[in-house]
Amino acid sequence: MDLGMTERVKPLIEQVRRMIEDEIAPLDAEFHAEVGKHPSGDRFKHTDRQLEILGGLKARARDRGLWNFWLTGSDRGYGLSTVEYAYLAEEMGKVHIAAEVFNCNAPDTGNMEVLERYGEQWMKDRWLAPLLNGDIRSAYVMTEPDVASSDAAQLAFEARRDGDDFILNGEKWWISGAGDPRCGLYILMACTDPDAAKHSRHTMFVLDPDLEGIEVLRPMHVFGQDDAPHGHMHIRFTNVRVPTANIVLGEGRGFEVAQGRLGPGRIHHCMRAIGQAEKALSMMCQRGLAREAFGKRISDLGANYDIIANARMEIEMARLLCLKAAWMMDTAGVRAAQPWISKIKVIAPLMAGKVIDEAMQLHGAGGISQDYDLAHMWTHVRTLRFADGPDAVHRRQVARAELRKHVNEKI
Amino acid sequence: MDLGMTERVKPLIEQVRRMIEDEIAPLDAEFHAEVGKHPSGDRFKHTDRQLEILGGLKARARDRGLWNFWLTGSDRGYGLSTVEYAYLAEEMGKVHIAAEVFNCNAPDTGNMEVLERYGEQWMKDRWLAPLLNGDIRSAYVMTEPDVASSDAAQLAFEARRDGDDFILNGEKWWISGAGDPRCGLYILMACTDPDAAKHSRHTMFVLDPDLEGIEVLRPMHVFGQDDAPHGHMHIRFTNVRVPTANIVLGEGRGFEVAQGRLGPGRIHHCMRAIGQAEKALSMMCQRGLAREAFGKRISDLGANYDIIANARMEIEMARLLCLKAAWMMDTAGVRAAQPWISKIKVIAPLMAGKVIDEAMQLHGAGGISQDYDLAHMWTHVRTLRFADGPDAVHRRQVARAELRKHVNEKI
Amino acid sequence: MDLGMTERVKPLIEQVRRMIEDEIAPLDAEFHAEVGKHPSGDRFKHTDRQLEILGGLKARARDRGLWNFWLTGSDRGYGLSTVEYAYLAEEMGKVHIAAEVFNCNAPDTGNMEVLERYGEQWMKDRWLAPLLNGDIRSAYVMTEPDVASSDAAQLAFEARRDGDDFILNGEKWWISGAGDPRCGLYILMACTDPDAAKHSRHTMFVLDPDLEGIEVLRPMHVFGQDDAPHGHMHIRFTNVRVPTANIVLGEGRGFEVAQGRLGPGRIHHCMRAIGQAEKALSMMCQRGLAREAFGKRISDLGANYDIIANARMEIEMARLLCLKAAWMMDTAGVRAAQPWISKIKVIAPLMAGKVIDEAMQLHGAGGISQDYDLAHMWTHVRTLRFADGPDAVHRRQVARAELRKHVNEKI
Amino acid sequence: MDLGMTERVKPLIEQVRRMIEDEIAPLDAEFHAEVGKHPSGDRFKHTDRQLEILGGLKARARDRGLWNFWLTGSDRGYGLSTVEYAYLAEEMGKVHIAAEVFNCNAPDTGNMEVLERYGEQWMKDRWLAPLLNGDIRSAYVMTEPDVASSDAAQLAFEARRDGDDFILNGEKWWISGAGDPRCGLYILMACTDPDAAKHSRHTMFVLDPDLEGIEVLRPMHVFGQDDAPHGHMHIRFTNVRVPTANIVLGEGRGFEVAQGRLGPGRIHHCMRAIGQAEKALSMMCQRGLAREAFGKRISDLGANYDIIANARMEIEMARLLCLKAAWMMDTAGVRAAQPWISKIKVIAPLMAGKVIDEAMQLHGAGGISQDYDLAHMWTHVRTLRFADGPDAVHRRQVARAELRKHVNEKI
Repeated sequence: MDLGMTERVKPLIEQVRRMIEDEIAPLDAEFHAEVGKHPSGDRFKHTDRQLEILGGLKARARDRGLWNFWLTGSDRGYGLSTVEYAYLAEEMGKVHIAAEVFNCNAPDTGNMEVLERYGEQWMKDRWLAPLLNGDIRSAYVMTEPDVASSDAAQLAFEARRDGDDFILNGEKWWISGAGDPRCGLYILMACTDPDAAKHSRHTMFVLDPDLEGIEVLRPMHVFGQDDAPHGHMHIRFTNVRVPTANIVLGEGRGFEVAQGRLGPGRIHHCMRAIGQAEKALSMMCQRGLAREAFGKRISDLGANYDIIANARMEIEMARLLCLKAAWMMDTAGVRAAQPWISKIKVIAPLMAGKVIDEAMQLHGAGGISQDYDLAHMWTHVRTLRFADGPDAVHRRQVARAELRKHVNEKI
Repeated sequence: MDLGMTERVKPLIEQVRRMIEDEIAPLDAEFHAEVGKHPSGDRFKHTDRQLEILGGLKARARDRGLWNFWLTGSDRGYGLSTVEYAYLAEEMGKVHIAAEVFNCNAPDTGNMEVLERYGEQWMKDRWLAPLLNGDIRSAYVMTEPDVASSDAAQLAFEARRDGDDFILNGEKWWISGAGDPRCGLYILMACTDPDAAKHSRHTMFVLDPDLEGIEVLRPMHVFGQDDAPHGHMHIRFTNVRVPTANIVLGEGRGFEVAQGRLGPGRIHHCMRAIGQAEKALSMMCQRGLAREAFGKRISDLGANYDIIANARMEIEMARLLCLKAAWMMDTAGVRAAQPWISKIKVIAPLMAGKVIDEAMQLHGAGGISQDYDLAHMWTHVRTLRFADGPDAVHRRQVARAELRKHVNEKI
Repeated sequence: MDLGMTERVKPLIEQVRRMIEDEIAPLDAEFHAEVGKHPSGDRFKHTDRQLEILGGLKARARDRGLWNFWLTGSDRGYGLSTVEYAYLAEEMGKVHIAAEVFNCNAPDTGNMEVLERYGEQWMKDRWLAPLLNGDIRSAYVMTEPDVASSDAAQLAFEARRDGDDFILNGEKWWISGAGDPRCGLYILMACTDPDAAKHSRHTMFVLDPDLEGIEVLRPMHVFGQDDAPHGHMHIRFTNVRVPTANIVLGEGRGFEVAQGRLGPGRIHHCMRAIGQAEKALSMMCQRGLAREAFGKRISDLGANYDIIANARMEIEMARLLCLKAAWMMDTAGVRAAQPWISKIKVIAPLMAGKVIDEAMQLHGAGGISQDYDLAHMWTHVRTLRFADGPDAVHRRQVARAELRKHVNEKI
Repeated sequence: MDLGMTERVKPLIEQVRRMIEDEIAPLDAEFHAEVGKHPSGDRFKHTDRQLEILGGLKARARDRGLWNFWLTGSDRGYGLSTVEYAYLAEEMGKVHIAAEVFNCNAPDTGNMEVLERYGEQWMKDRWLAPLLNGDIRSAYVMTEPDVASSDAAQLAFEARRDGDDFILNGEKWWISGAGDPRCGLYILMACTDPDAAKHSRHTMFVLDPDLEGIEVLRPMHVFGQDDAPHGHMHIRFTNVRVPTANIVLGEGRGFEVAQGRLGPGRIHHCMRAIGQAEKALSMMCQRGLAREAFGKRISDLGANYDIIANARMEIEMARLLCLKAAWMMDTAGVRAAQPWISKIKVIAPLMAGKVIDEAMQLHGAGGISQDYDLAHMWTHVRTLRFADGPDAVHRRQVARAELRKHVNEKI
C-alpha cells in the first residue's frame, strides 16, 4: 500500500507548485477583481483581461505539458495513478483558478470521464475533444429544488419520450459552471420512467446549453456570493427537445453513469480541500509569529500551540485517509473503494473547515475580509459538505458497510 | 435571581414579536433586494424605497411607543432592566432590520450610552437627541488594521495636540455603520499619549463624519459581502482637526469610556444571536418535518433527533447564562458583571453558529443560498467571535477570575 | 423565575457546607479504607468503625436538624422547594458519604417518595418511618440483564398471580444499595400482564429483602469496583411469594409509580454531579497554581486557561439549566418538567465527566490514583449516563417535544 | 511509503490472530479471575493456575516461533520493520495477556531495547538473555511523585557518588510491572548532577529489585484497580547502593537513553490501543444488531449509524497515522520520527477512548461491568494519555515543529 509520492510524480508536483506560486497566485486576485467589470455590467461575462489571464496561463501550462493530469489509469496523458494525481490536486487546491489552468477543474473532469468511459464516438468528437483541449467548459445537471437530492431516486425532472426525441421539463439548480459563457455541454439526469425500479428510473443525456426552452433563472448564492462568472445556476427547462441518440449508456442507466462519475471527483475535491487546509495552517503560523499582543507573539498566547498542533494532526490524518481511498480506487476499483470515498468525503471538508476557521480566528477580523483568502476558502469548503452527497448520507454508507461485516443480510 | 419575563415586559414582547412577524419580516427581504439599486449605482446610498420602508416602520414603532427599549435602568423610556430588555433583544435578533426599526440597533445604542453617561450637555443636544429620535445614525471608531485590537492598549492611531485642537492621523477599519449616509457621528478612540500608563494612553473623541481629511477607503467584506448600505468601512484620517472640547470624559480616559460602553452591548449582541439560533432551530424542525428522503421524514433520519435535541439544550443554556449576565449587570454593576459578560460573549456566538450550521446542513444546498436567511445569519454570528474582543481574550478573563479565587495575588 | 438561593435556604447551605468540610470529609477516606476489613472478610459487611463513623455523623446531622431536606413541597421537614434543595444537593455531591449523613441519598429518597406519595398506611408505618429515621436502607429493583431497560416496556421479570399472592421469578441487576446489610426494603417492578397495553403491563411491589427465594448472585462492578458495602447487586428471584396487599397504587400501574419516582431523583443526581464538577475545577486551579513545569506554573502552560474557562462556563450553564428544571418541577409539576429533566439528565453528567477528565489530566498520573477523589468521581458520573435512562433516550424526548411544537400530531 | 501488510508479515498476523482468538482469549478471563486467590492472600503473587496459564501459552508461542517480534530492524528474530510489527501489536492489543504470551509486552520490550542498544555485554548476559527468553520481567523506574514528570528535567531522585558506588535516595511511583514477583530488573533514572545542563543531569542505572533499601510502599490504583499482579508500584529507595558499573551509556546521559527507549514503545502502545478500538467497534456492531428496543435493532436507533461511522473513520485515520510514524522510524530514524510519534501519541489514546466510550454506552450498564472487557479497556487507554508524556507535552512538540518551518530560530 504505497501512499507516497512516486519518483515519477515528484517533478510534476514541483513544476505545478512552482507555476502556481510564481505565475498563477499573483494573477488570481486580479482575475477575481475583474468580476462584474464587463462593459455590459453582466457579472457572468468575462472581461477581456480575464480571458487574457486564463488564456495565457492555460497556454503556458499546456506548452509545458502540465495538462489533464486527472486522466488517471489512462494511456493518454500521463497515465498517473489516483494516488499520484491526489498530490497534484492538493497543490491545485491552494489557489482558486489553478485547477482550470491545468485543465483539471470540476465539473469538467467528471464530465470528461463520463464521455471517455460511457460516451459514443460522436459525443467524444463533439464535446470530449474540445474539453480536453480546454476550449469549452461544461456543466453537470442533476440537483433539483423540490426534492432532497441526498436520495437521488427521488429526482423528478421529466424526460418524456416523443418519437425519436425526449421532451425535457422541470427545474434544476446549483448547476455549477453553467454561468460561464464558455459552457458548451450539459450532462443531465432526468427521470424517464418514474414507475421503474428505484435505480432504473433515470437516464443521462448530453445536450447543448443553448437549446430552445432552456432558461437560466438566476445564480444561486453561496453565502451571499454568486461565484461569477463560473456560477451555480438555477435553470428552467420548458419542452426542451433532445434526440434519443443523446442518451449516455442507455435508457434507465442514469444511476450507473452517475456512480461511475462521482468516485474520482470526490477524491479530487477532498485533496483540494486538504491543500486549502495546508495553506490555512501555513497562514496561521505566519500570522502567529508576526503579530504581537500582550507583549508576546500571538502564537505563544493561550491555546494557540494546541490549535496549531491539532490542525497539523488532523490534516495529516485526512491526507492519509484520502490517499488510501485513492489507492483503493487504483487497486480495487471504484465499487470497492466506495466506503473509503464516503469516509474521506465526510472527513476532508469537516477538517478543512475547522482548520480554516481557526486560521480566521487567529487573523482577527481581517481573516473574514477580502484581504485574505480565508473567508472564501471557508465558505467554499462548507459547500463540500453538501456537494456530491451530504455528510449524513456518506456516514450512513460507512455504517452500513461496517454492520454488514457482522450479519449475513442486507443492511 | 429572577431571570424570567416580568409581567411588565410580557406585553411589550408580544407587541414587538407581532410587529416583527407581521410587518417587518415581510419587508426585510425587499429592503435587502434594493441594495445597489440606487440610480447612481452606489451601494452605499439608500433607494427611495429603502427609505420608505425604514421610515414607515420606524414611525409606526415609535407611534406605538415601541422605541428605545435599550435605555435600561433609566427614568426615560421604559426603564427596563437588562434582563427585561434581553428578552426583547432576542426577538429583534430574528429579523435583520428589526433592531433599527425599534431604534435599538448597534452601534447606535452603545454610542447613545456613551453620550448619556459621559457626554456634556452640548454633545447630548447635538447628537444624542437626534439619535434617540432615530434621525441620524452613528459609528464607533476603534479598530485599527495594524495592531491586534484584542490588546487594545496597542491602538496607535494618533491624536496630537495643537493648541486648542487635536490633529488626528491614521487608519481605522471595520467601522460598522459608517457606510450609512445618515451616519452623523463618530465616537473615536485615539492615542494621545503613547508614553502614559497602559490604560491612560487613549482618549475618546466625538466628531462629525464629514470633517476635512476623513476619507472612506473601502468597505470591508464579511465573507464576501459588503453589508451595504450599513457597511464596515476602512477609513483614513489625514490631519483631521478636532477641538479639545470634543473629548469625552477627559484626556487619557478613553479606556474607561470604552469599558462602560461595551458591557450592555455585548449582552444585546448575544441575545440577538440567541434569537437567531431559535429561528434556525425552528426552521430546522419545519424542514425536517416537511421534506422526505428514503421514504421517511428527514427529521426521522440518522442523527437528526440528537441534533435537534442538542440544539434545544444548548440554546436554553446559553439563554440562561445570558440572562444571568444581564441580572449581574442589573444588580451588581458592569464591573462585577464583567466575567459573566465574557462568559456569554464566548458561548452565545459559538452556540448560535453551531445551531445555524446544523440547520443549514438539514436544508441541503438551499440552506446556504439566498432562499433562506441561514447563510447570512451564519456569517453574521461568525463575526461576533471577533467583535468586541475575540473568544480567546474573553476566555482568558474567565480563567483569571477563576484562578484569583485561589490565590491572593494578581493573575 | 427565581433561580437564586432564597434567604431561607442560605443558612442551611452554610451549615451543610461547613459540616461536610469540617466533619464529613475528614472521615470519608477512613470510611472507604475500612471496606473489606470486616473480620469475616465480607466486603458487604460494615466494620464497627464504619458503623461508628456513619452513626456518629448521622446523629449529629439529625440533632442539628440537617435532615431529610429532600422532602420538598411537603409540610413535613423544611418544605423546601426543589430549587432550594438543589443547592443543598450540590454541596452533598462533593463528598461521597455526605448525602447519607443528611438522609438524602439515592435510592432511598426516591423510595421514600414512592411510599409517601403512593403507599398505604401500613407500608408507611413499616418502611417509611424507619427510612425517614435513617434506621434502614432500601433498594429499587427494576433493571434486568436480558432486556434493554431504556425501553422499560420490555421488562419481563415475571409476577404470576396465585390466589392472594404473586409468585416472582426472574433476575434483576444493578440493584444499588442491595449490598448494604441494613437494606430493609425492595421496591420492585414486575410484569404482571405481558399482554396488556404497553404501559399497563407492570406492577410495583414492596417486599422484604430476606424473603425465601431471593438470592444475591454477585455485585456488579463499576469499572472494576464493587462499591461495597453499598453495592449494585445482581439478584435472582425463584418462586418468591408476595401478597397482593404489597402492590403499590394498583395492579398494572407500575409505570405510573416509576415516572413519579424518577423526576426529582434525576435532578438530585444532576446537582450532585455539578457539585463534583465544582470540586474538580477547584482542584484543577489549585494544582495548576501549585505545580511547576518548564519554569512556569502549570496553569500558565498551554491551553490551561482555556480549559479552566471552559470548565467554569459549562458548570454555570449546567447549573442554571438544572435550576430551571427544578423550578419547572416546583411551578408546573413533574409532567410539564419532563423535557427539562431530560435536558439536564443529558447535560450534567456529560459536563461533569468532561470537567473531571480535564482535572485528572492536569493532575498527571496522580489524578487517576487513590490519592485524589478524581478517579472515583469520574467513574461515578460516567454511570449517570446510563442510570435512570441513557442519554439517547433523553435526547429523543427532548427532540420529540421540540418537533411537537410544529405539528399537530404524535411524534 | 508502503504502509501495507507485507507478504512476509501476513502469515505471522494470521497465526497470531488465530492463537489469540482460539487459545489466549479463552484463558484471559480465567487468568484475571485468579487474582487475589493466592493462598497467602497476596494479590501480587501468582497462583499456580496463573503460572500454568502463562507458562503454557508462552511455551506454545515460542515453540511456534511467535516470539519477540518487537526486535525490529535486527538480525535476530524476524527482523521485522516497525510498520510490520505495528500490525502485530494491533492484534496483541485485543486481549490483555496476549502481548506477554508473545514476549512483546511493555515495559519489557523498551527495557530490552535499552540493553540491546546501550547495554554492556555483562548487562546483556545477566538481564537481556533471560528477558528475551521470557524468564524474568523488568520495570522502568522514572516517574516521581513530587515533580511534574512532563518536564523530565525536574526529576530529582538522588544518586550521590560514593567511591565506586552511587547511593540512591528518593521515591518513584507508577513503576509498572514492579509488582510482578518475576520482576528481575529495574532500569532507573536518577539525578546525578542537579547543577549540570538541563539534559545532562540524569543518569540511567540497571539494578536488581531486591537490593537492600528498596521498599515497595503500595500499588498505585488505576481508577480503583491495582492491576495485580503486574502492578504500578510506589517505591521508596533508602541509601540503596549501586556500583558505577551499573550505569548505562555513561554518567549524565540518562536523557539520551530515555529518548532512545521511548520512540518505539509509544508506537506499540498506540497500535495496541487501535486494536482495542477495533475490538470495541466490533462489539458495538454486534450488540447493536443483537439487541432491540422500541421495536427496532439498537443499531437502527437514533444516532447509532453516525456513531458507528465516526468510529470506523477515526480508527482508520489513527491507524494510518500510526503506520506513518512507524514508517518514519524505519526510514528516517527515531529523531526525525519524533514529531510523528508525538502526533500518534496524542491521537490514538484519545480516539480509542472515544470509541470504547461509545461502545460502553451502546451496551447499557453491562458495558461498564465485569461482563465485558470495555470498562477495563477504557480505563487502560485513559492512562495512555499520561504515560510516556501527557497530551499537552506532545501537542507542544508538534506545534513547535510546525512553527519552526516558518522561522529560522529556536521555538
